[in-house]
Amino acid sequence: MDAAFHIQARDPGSRARAGLLRTAHGVVRTPAFVPLATKGVVRGISAAEVEALGYDMVLGNTFHLWLEPGHDLVGGFGGLHEFMGWPRPIITDSGGFQVFSMGYGNVSAEIKKTGAGPGGNSVLGITEEGVTFKNPRNGAAIFMGPETSMEVQAALNSDIALVFDECTPYHVDRDYTARSTERTHRWLRRCLDWHAEHGPPEQLVYGIVQGGVYEDLRVASAQAVAASDVDGIAIGGSLGADKDQMHGVVDLTTAVLPEDRPRHLLGIGEVDDLIRGVELGIDTFDCVTPTRLGRHGGVLVPDPGRRFRLDLTAARFKTSTDPIEDGCPCAACAGGHTRGYLRYLAKNREQTGQRLLTLHNLTYLARLMRDLREAIAAGTLAETAAALRAGEPPSTEPVEPLSPPEPSPSAARS
Amino acid sequence: MDAAFHIQARDPGSRARAGLLRTAHGVVRTPAFVPLATKGVVRGISAAEVEALGYDMVLGNTFHLWLEPGHDLVGGFGGLHEFMGWPRPIITDSGGFQVFSMGYGNVSAEIKKTGAGPGGNSVLGITEEGVTFKNPRNGAAIFMGPETSMEVQAALNSDIALVFDECTPYHVDRDYTARSTERTHRWLRRCLDWHAEHGPPEQLVYGIVQGGVYEDLRVASAQAVAASDVDGIAIGGSLGADKDQMHGVVDLTTAVLPEDRPRHLLGIGEVDDLIRGVELGIDTFDCVTPTRLGRHGGVLVPDPGRRFRLDLTAARFKTSTDPIEDGCPCAACAGGHTRGYLRYLAKNREQTGQRLLTLHNLTYLARLMRDLREAIAAGTLAETAAALRAGEPPSTEPVEPLSPPEPSPSAARS
Repeated sequence: MDAAFHIQARDPGSRARAGLLRTAHGVVRTPAFVPLATKGVVRGISAAEVEALGYDMVLGNTFHLWLEPGHDLVGGFGGLHEFMGWPRPIITDSGGFQVFSMGYGNVSAEIKKTGAGPGGNSVLGITEEGVTFKNPRNGAAIFMGPETSMEVQAALNSDIALVFDECTPYHVDRDYTARSTERTHRWLRRCLDWHAEHGPPEQLVYGIVQGGVYEDLRVASAQAVAASDVDGIAIGGSLGADKDQMHGVVDLTTAVLPEDRPRHLLGIGEVDDLIRGVELGIDTFDCVTPTRLGRHGGVLVPDPGRRFRLDLTAARFKTSTDPIEDGCPCAACAGGHTRGYLRYLAKNREQTGQRLLTLHNLTYLARLMRDLREAIAAGTLAETAAALRAGEPPSTEPVEPLSPPEPSPSAARS
Repeated sequence: MDAAFHIQARDPGSRARAGLLRTAHGVVRTPAFVPLATKGVVRGISAAEVEALGYDMVLGNTFHLWLEPGHDLVGGFGGLHEFMGWPRPIITDSGGFQVFSMGYGNVSAEIKKTGAGPGGNSVLGITEEGVTFKNPRNGAAIFMGPETSMEVQAALNSDIALVFDECTPYHVDRDYTARSTERTHRWLRRCLDWHAEHGPPEQLVYGIVQGGVYEDLRVASAQAVAASDVDGIAIGGSLGADKDQMHGVVDLTTAVLPEDRPRHLLGIGEVDDLIRGVELGIDTFDCVTPTRLGRHGGVLVPDPGRRFRLDLTAARFKTSTDPIEDGCPCAACAGGHTRGYLRYLAKNREQTGQRLLTLHNLTYLARLMRDLREAIAAGTLAETAAALRAGEPPSTEPVEPLSPPEPSPSAARS
């Protein structure tokens, strides 16, 4: 299958490339950061606002939307685009991460919020068929396998579906990782078979490379996924104990991936990781960082000494009349709001504050990715990446949204 | 003192009037609804958005801002306008309602949220001097009297300060109400004296009419307040057990108020009450309804049979593809969001949903008040009020914000 991915420029000094990813609901300019709309909403922000920030795609979550409000209900609206009022591309995570993270005990905050008890092993059984686990909403045993995930994603009618995989955690051994990765490859085949027969014809399907931190397993997985007829390739699972190891795993993976298909790095989105990921040839990234950080009083700033973030709830900002970042075009900075006021709102968990910080963080990453895209096109990525790493702010021009998408006639399913 | 209130048109068939209220931070078109910015923020909405909705003034709360972040801190920013990034007029409630509501056991939801135990009598003593009560944040005994309230409001540098009053509840008897109302009149005098000596010269001061549901006490209070040199007159305290009694109390009060000073009705903002209040000669209203309702899944609609509101969390909206209101220019309706999606967001307490419903409700009331203002000017209030009461939607044109205010040089204090 020919993925509608067109590389427009390559950086001569790295694996970075800039391109256009064409989907049933329009184009994604790459490299791109993809904000999370886990439950069909970017938390605190409306779909129109996400568009206005210059984002081309959001990521919805199969697991969450399956449980609530249910893929049948979303399908009744015509799909996730119509349900959430977002006319542009959507990628859906497969649910594998969520299902398995329940088993490994590191239930995500989102799952906790639905009312499940903290911790505990909610996975009742993992077989070749799929996973049976306790519904975190009501404790009932439910089953998700590769076909379930693809069926849900078909009903959501996302532009890009991710195959159902076992997301192997860091603490398991090489032997478990090897066996798990092989099962993930068999599940990939089942996902593609189901999709070929039942999936929306225009929906792209990405495979997921697993293999933990083991070089030979990662390489074998990358080759196995690349050998299948997936439209794109995501890198998932444990990427290591620290940033160096994570960058190493991405490096050895993209080294063996085919050039012509788009690559997504799952769950990574800190500023330095985005810059490095682009150099390593990643095209799209998703991460909870900008939105979750904003809800907890954290903001992105061009300061490598502070890992590019500030905790605005710190007492030293109490009387600060500075903006978060001089010249930033976001609603918080351009709106004239001071760090002192935003600190007050964040400390009091006022929604307006959480939202303004989220808008700043999403604006910051949109600017960062725009600068990286333009630098690749201009042949200046090395200088731009060095400047951004050293604490130069991304250009303060707002990121222009693409013209409104014109979905192809077959993109509407209702 | 000459209140900067200019009546531009009067309705021949009622006491309604349309005018301009000039303050240090610009003009308020009356009659007007005033959104609550209790803690220095309209919940979920940024100051720039409140302006864009066509609101000219917001209401901050002396009690809440005194406790957190403190009037000294706000004063250090130059005042509440600078602190919250709102350049237009601000009216501040005196704190009397909050202080006394703690004593009468009906602690407001806002106060509960700060961590005080539910219920219980937090008022330690009411004397001629003022009120001593337990700080709901830490249990420490603190005191607020007329001078405290005016001092806090001076630091906040609001455009309109309300005098400190005893907000007499519904359940107390005539004798208590009479004695309480007389004390409120003595406190009015102390507030005006403090303000004459220490208050910001451009800050307007409104007196508050008390007297409960007792006609003679209300009339006496209205006359006492009108006889003082207040710039405007607010109507507070218990307005009765139902809407008829409330409208009756407002009626007998505005009947004896002087024509030339602006009148504010405290805490009233349901659609039918706004229409009736305008007919009775009220110029400004504040109420938690549009914002709180929105946070709990409720929306305003032109449907008198449902008290002009819908509970979107009802199951019947689960699959609805209708907007909240056809033609409404708000971010929810014009953004293409369905009742079904908004229900899903509201049920899951997603901030984006709470916010979209709040924006709809504020848009609805802005449209309603604009129509009433224009009808008074056009001499068609009777027809417009009848149509709105019967369920005609307010005009769906967005409400134009006034041009940016040009504060007078002395309005900046820092």
